[in-house]
Amino acid sequence: MQDPFELSPSECEALLRAGVVGRIALATPTGPHIVPVNYSVVEESIVVLTSPYSLLGTHGRDSMLAFEIDQFDYEYHRGWSVVARGRAEVVTDPAEVERIRKTWPPRPWASGIRTLCLRIRWSELSGRRLGTGWQPMEDLPVHRVV
Amino acid sequence: MQDPFELSPSECEALLRAGVVGRIALATPTGPHIVPVNYSVVEESIVVLTSPYSLLGTHGRDSMLAFEIDQFDYEYHRGWSVVARGRAEVVTDPAEVERIRKTWPPRPWASGIRTLCLRIRWSELSGRRLGTGWQPMEDLPVHRVV
Repeated sequence: MQDPFELSPSECEALLRAGVVGRIALATPTGPHIVPVNYSVVEESIVVLTSPYSLLGTHGRDSMLAFEIDQFDYEYHRGWSVVARGRAEVVTDPAEVERIRKTWPPRPWASGIRTLCLRIRWSELSGRRLGTGWQPMEDLPVHRVV
Repeated sequence: MQDPFELSPSECEALLRAGVVGRIALATPTGPHIVPVNYSVVEESIVVLTSPYSLLGTHGRDSMLAFEIDQFDYEYHRGWSVVARGRAEVVTDPAEVERIRKTWPPRPWASGIRTLCLRIRWSELSGRRLGTGWQPMEDLPVHRVV
């Protein structure tokens, strides 16, 4: 078994900015739920596109959410995870929608009409790494490309 | 972009039983949280070991939780996810602790004293697959071994 190490805020942020898929935990009237999402990071916010009728569109707006990314190495039993928490707001200002579109829009893998843009400004950022002798940033499965 | 397909309950269950790492979403006084965990499946329950003082040990017991596993193919933009939801109970009955230990104990990768055994009997099981021409069970990164 391996000892967990805390990741620094800058490591957490670098990993967040490098990813394209994560999971959002949200509260619903029947308890917590988890939803995988494609995302992007614009400034200090996680941005996702969804439908106003989805679980996330219904219960995720104007609420505290937790967003998580991770990577596991099954062979060596090591890995890392980063959790960003904050309040989600619907982006409605056309200038801001345009700015997101021009800087780094989320690119959903799944089809579907996604007219709702949610922005989670993180107020809390934490991460852990399990196992020594390797660096999370050097072994990512993907880096987002311009 | 790809159309998502619902996974059948038996596919969801097979994927759950094959895995060793997932994430738990839980409600805390400051909002939802996500915690990566090693787990096992015993009968119709997800079983995890934690510390009574952890986030999960503090806010996860006797509460509704959501447990998620997934796999993403970054190259082809496809993947799958399974979410199991249910109420978490602390396993205290020594006979049941022993039965879990003998059938399929969770094997944590991270060190730490884990005296709290949580069991989530799922009351809801759902899953989605993105992309055609492949089968989630045939391309797993790991299968749990006896």
